[in-house]
Amino acid sequence: MNEIAIPLNHLPNAEDIQRVRRIIAPYAHQTPVLTSQTFDQMLGASLFFKCENLQKGGAFKFRGATHAVMTLPEADAARGVCTHSSGNHAQALALAASMRGIEAHIVMPDNAPRIKVEAVKGYGGQITFCKPTLQDREATLQKVMERTGAVEIHPYNDYRIIAGQATACAELLETTRKLDIIIAPVGGGGLLSGTILSARYFSPGTKVIAAEPLQANDAWKSFTQKQFVPSENPVTIADGLRTSLGSLTYPIIMDGVEDILTATEETIVKAMKLIWERMKIVVEPSGVLPLAIMLENPDRFRGKRVGLILSGGNTDLDHLPWLEKKR
Amino acid sequence: MNEIAIPLNHLPNAEDIQRVRRIIAPYAHQTPVLTSQTFDQMLGASLFFKCENLQKGGAFKFRGATHAVMTLPEADAARGVCTHSSGNHAQALALAASMRGIEAHIVMPDNAPRIKVEAVKGYGGQITFCKPTLQDREATLQKVMERTGAVEIHPYNDYRIIAGQATACAELLETTRKLDIIIAPVGGGGLLSGTILSARYFSPGTKVIAAEPLQANDAWKSFTQKQFVPSENPVTIADGLRTSLGSLTYPIIMDGVEDILTATEETIVKAMKLIWERMKIVVEPSGVLPLAIMLENPDRFRGKRVGLILSGGNTDLDHLPWLEKKR
Repeated sequence: MNEIAIPLNHLPNAEDIQRVRRIIAPYAHQTPVLTSQTFDQMLGASLFFKCENLQKGGAFKFRGATHAVMTLPEADAARGVCTHSSGNHAQALALAASMRGIEAHIVMPDNAPRIKVEAVKGYGGQITFCKPTLQDREATLQKVMERTGAVEIHPYNDYRIIAGQATACAELLETTRKLDIIIAPVGGGGLLSGTILSARYFSPGTKVIAAEPLQANDAWKSFTQKQFVPSENPVTIADGLRTSLGSLTYPIIMDGVEDILTATEETIVKAMKLIWERMKIVVEPSGVLPLAIMLENPDRFRGKRVGLILSGGNTDLDHLPWLEKKR
Repeated sequence: MNEIAIPLNHLPNAEDIQRVRRIIAPYAHQTPVLTSQTFDQMLGASLFFKCENLQKGGAFKFRGATHAVMTLPEADAARGVCTHSSGNHAQALALAASMRGIEAHIVMPDNAPRIKVEAVKGYGGQITFCKPTLQDREATLQKVMERTGAVEIHPYNDYRIIAGQATACAELLETTRKLDIIIAPVGGGGLLSGTILSARYFSPGTKVIAAEPLQANDAWKSFTQKQFVPSENPVTIADGLRTSLGSLTYPIIMDGVEDILTATEETIVKAMKLIWERMKIVVEPSGVLPLAIMLENPDRFRGKRVGLILSGGNTDLDHLPWLEKKR
């Protein structure tokens, strides 16, 4: 599989992204695009939901992880892969590695939710626990790499990953023509960067808007201040969107995003419950940000054809935010 | 639209069902068929989930209701339609009627869940409340019909409805070849009858098995005793499966079903949470019965290609059964 790997040092072009689609096709779902009369009427727009919550591993992360794992040269793959993550990338990498039959070493903070630990174990990942600080995560990962020789696969600051995440938007644009706008959530920026690239290559008239929690608005600050602003321990229910942009994702986003809009925690919870109730799908808080910003800025989208990337669906069914509040 | 109505007095044939597909196509979703590696591994079988929870109105009921409403002769349609229902048929009929621009009068028990009342209102249905007894429901419906002249559309004991519900299985068999078994839940038997007919016409080698709550096992009793046994106020969380079979559905089912299997309340709740957690979709208790019977009878399905009709997703997100127990 190694002869078709994208080198790490170039921005994925249109051909790269199409090649990645073929590489991951045997492993990943082509997720459905759902529509909802209820939301169309509520917002006066035509909404097309790209359901990455229905992706294997429960999130778009499986696209990038699968691409990275499947294109590893044989000698590297034999050493296994590793990452530190308490979120969807951990599950995605463990699942992709199991499909190639290699080991995945995942460093997780010792306060990670039981459900996420179980999911990584369920996919055959080898977990090493660490203290819940970035410093200890990185130090522990370093030790794991020294001990095992495993290859690190970064969750977003890697062109192989960005090209993988770009395939979600490429599929959306193929099944749903003439979109005016595509909205993607932004955390580390892997999905957003990939979305920007696919829109540029495959539908140049389509603008990309990013959606971010107001309480974790480092990308918005970076965009408005035209300089990199890191994320500093933000408190938001959207646990997948707490990270800073990376050195590879930052320039793609600054160059290509039309705007970055934010939503409050209250709107995020409202959007989450609305999607579950009306569309009958389970989407995690980070995944509903595109709808949340539409709810807060309806005038911006009225009359438009809007694609929304619902990024994932991994959430603890024993702790639902609209019920937690009531207790 | 009236020239293509199926007469009420004949069993739908293959051509009828294909015609119904064309009639409802502009209104209904062709729902996706999802697969899950997790469930395939758990059960040692290949599972194909036909997601009628993603149908408009949140359930397969919209298929039959749309067919009945759209094929009403103009003079009948002008009088509006009516039914008594506290469930998915009420929502489906209200939505279908609104699409044709006619009135829907829905008789609902005065203890119906607020969320279902709101849904019917949201689709423009005119609600008349009654006492929560079958007697008062029927008496109140009679009065509504006398007052408005509206045409009654029965939720299942009507060949137009059965032919409509049959389209779900017809679609499943078109997208997913060579199924060994299709499992459908059984309440009044509209969906099950339609499934049996479509399997017979479009995939004669495919067997149909019905799934029923153990605590509402009137269809199982009817099947094993070879005579009609009514449902008598059963207590089950699967609120869509509490009704008796009808005079039209009973003979189709007795003639065509391979077997009827039951599941306990505990397994139904377990199957519900598993589907939400692993497949990231919202399915109501009645809709998970096909998976529940597989969990209770894994040997019966091992190694098979199994289609499961997830019938609906209308459930109260403020009262989830796995959380209710904990409180």
